[in-house]
Amino acid sequence: MSRPGALFLSEIRGQPDAIGRLLERTSDYDAVAAEIAKRAPAPIRLVGHGSSDAAASYGVYAFGVLAGLTAMWDSISLTTYYDAKLDVSNSAVIALSQSGQTQDVVEYVMRMRARGAFTVALTNDPRSALAQTAEATLPLMAGPERSVAASKTYMNQLASLALLAGGAAGKARKIADGLRRVTEQMTEMLDPLGLRAGEIAPAFTYVERMFVIGRGFELATAREVALKLTETCRIAAEPLTATDLAHGPVAAIEALFPVWAIASHDETLAAVIEATVRARAAGATLVASGSAAAKIPHAAFSLPVPRPPRPAFAPLLSVVAGQLFAAALARARGLDADHPEQLTKVTLAQ
Amino acid sequence: MSRPGALFLSEIRGQPDAIGRLLERTSDYDAVAAEIAKRAPAPIRLVGHGSSDAAASYGVYAFGVLAGLTAMWDSISLTTYYDAKLDVSNSAVIALSQSGQTQDVVEYVMRMRARGAFTVALTNDPRSALAQTAEATLPLMAGPERSVAASKTYMNQLASLALLAGGAAGKARKIADGLRRVTEQMTEMLDPLGLRAGEIAPAFTYVERMFVIGRGFELATAREVALKLTETCRIAAEPLTATDLAHGPVAAIEALFPVWAIASHDETLAAVIEATVRARAAGATLVASGSAAAKIPHAAFSLPVPRPPRPAFAPLLSVVAGQLFAAALARARGLDADHPEQLTKVTLAQ
Repeated sequence: MSRPGALFLSEIRGQPDAIGRLLERTSDYDAVAAEIAKRAPAPIRLVGHGSSDAAASYGVYAFGVLAGLTAMWDSISLTTYYDAKLDVSNSAVIALSQSGQTQDVVEYVMRMRARGAFTVALTNDPRSALAQTAEATLPLMAGPERSVAASKTYMNQLASLALLAGGAAGKARKIADGLRRVTEQMTEMLDPLGLRAGEIAPAFTYVERMFVIGRGFELATAREVALKLTETCRIAAEPLTATDLAHGPVAAIEALFPVWAIASHDETLAAVIEATVRARAAGATLVASGSAAAKIPHAAFSLPVPRPPRPAFAPLLSVVAGQLFAAALARARGLDADHPEQLTKVTLAQ
Repeated sequence: MSRPGALFLSEIRGQPDAIGRLLERTSDYDAVAAEIAKRAPAPIRLVGHGSSDAAASYGVYAFGVLAGLTAMWDSISLTTYYDAKLDVSNSAVIALSQSGQTQDVVEYVMRMRARGAFTVALTNDPRSALAQTAEATLPLMAGPERSVAASKTYMNQLASLALLAGGAAGKARKIADGLRRVTEQMTEMLDPLGLRAGEIAPAFTYVERMFVIGRGFELATAREVALKLTETCRIAAEPLTATDLAHGPVAAIEALFPVWAIASHDETLAAVIEATVRARAAGATLVASGSAAAKIPHAAFSLPVPRPPRPAFAPLLSVVAGQLFAAALARARGLDADHPEQLTKVTLAQ
């Protein structure tokens, strides 16, 4: 039996290698990307649960910004429960599942394929039910993930979606080169960021609720960081866009209410800063992360990451700060991030 | 100065009349619905913030189930911040805004219209910036909403989306008749439901966090109820699909953690029940609402509503239980639901 949280931490630290393995399979992605691009302007339908759902948010921005393609988060229940008669014959479907065993995702893909959609499985297990159901399967190459709380699977889902979006735009090589640079930045930052997270985390030992805000590309990061904090630290952490915050939830903020903000150097930065100013005015304790963490005024804590070669890659670096913080905080709270109560690695729930 | 929360309560109680006013304008909806249907299978793009965003979730299911059309929650920031070059020339856009003044929604509609999309404004104010920017404007007919926390605007957004989806499917008359029946059910239930909410609410006076779960059509209700609790009661209430809960957040549940479940008689009921069983096993205190509230085992509290003439109308009744509960709880907590701190009626934030 390893030390509690040791698997989670070692998988977080293994993420640069995981991306590296994926980049060796770049050519597998090109043909599928071309098939996806061929179906535009029909929307690309992204589905997944948990971390895979957060990664799907990233896909919306990756396809939109890198390739000018409409990708949408699709409702699984609309198809699996309500059997809605959608015309999806010209759509591409990308189904995200670490295990490839999530029942309703498999069912969704089966129905979409029967209705003529081009279905792609993005999974770690090429022999899984999902892989066998989809028309094309792309290997996630994250390797076996033993911690219940996912890290490298999510990371490689982001990298895979960036490769697909890049491929659809005819710039696969450029995207792959950029991702390679990101792995170098990630390797360099892991040690100092882990130390810093370990210093900051204990102050949050008794926190019960939290908001995590991002915008655009970093909405995926907000969702994934909130999920890690919920799973591993038992904090009711809610992800919000910087704009959502102003439309209601800011009302719940009182003195010391913790708000984690992801600020990256891109077009959404001003909106994120504005949201943190409002949260601070309401009494929030701000944790600033992202490459533009230093731009957040009055942050009580800061976990900056390097600025990647293009804004589309920012979430790959930003999320690591949240993962390391969650790992350190779980430790401080005496919880085992590898085996959270109530959770299992493969979720078969409907 | 009226009694704190009096406006919110009177607007909640005015919802059957608000729907009634809308139903007198059904013919306005038919022409627009036909224009929307003409553009299929291109996705219908729904946008809004806060309550309007929750209503947009309803639109995804209304168009999908009633008309077999793909509607998607669209990212505003993808267009307004990143200027993604999406091909939207065959899309319909439905922009939801009570005031019609939300800046980034107006900007989004302007750009979508310039790119050839058919743009529709759904707003209370036909002279607003949004109405002037969109190609077509549909009157929401909710009337002036004076409480900062919205109720009848959200209600009429649901009814409007049902009318549009019904119109797109060529069954506008049937949908309007069904909605008329819903107003009768709502009128009958208001008094007893309000009393029951007043009895239950005080037990939650010191609650700080909560999960609100729904699935399918009722995801919109989960989002709206969570938002009401956050705005008016300062509870960090997070909306989740019944399936999301199992993929992580269940880990945060401990003894007495309140989970509000919306259970309606439709295809998703089994999934919602299963999620509540898991939450209860983790120690949650369950509040059951919806027409199938009685099907939730071990609920500590129950706020059932009548079963509507079709499942698609369930959210119009279910949400009222949450509104009345929020109104009663705000009162118990000594908060003024009409004027929550930090919030204003028209949110101009980016």
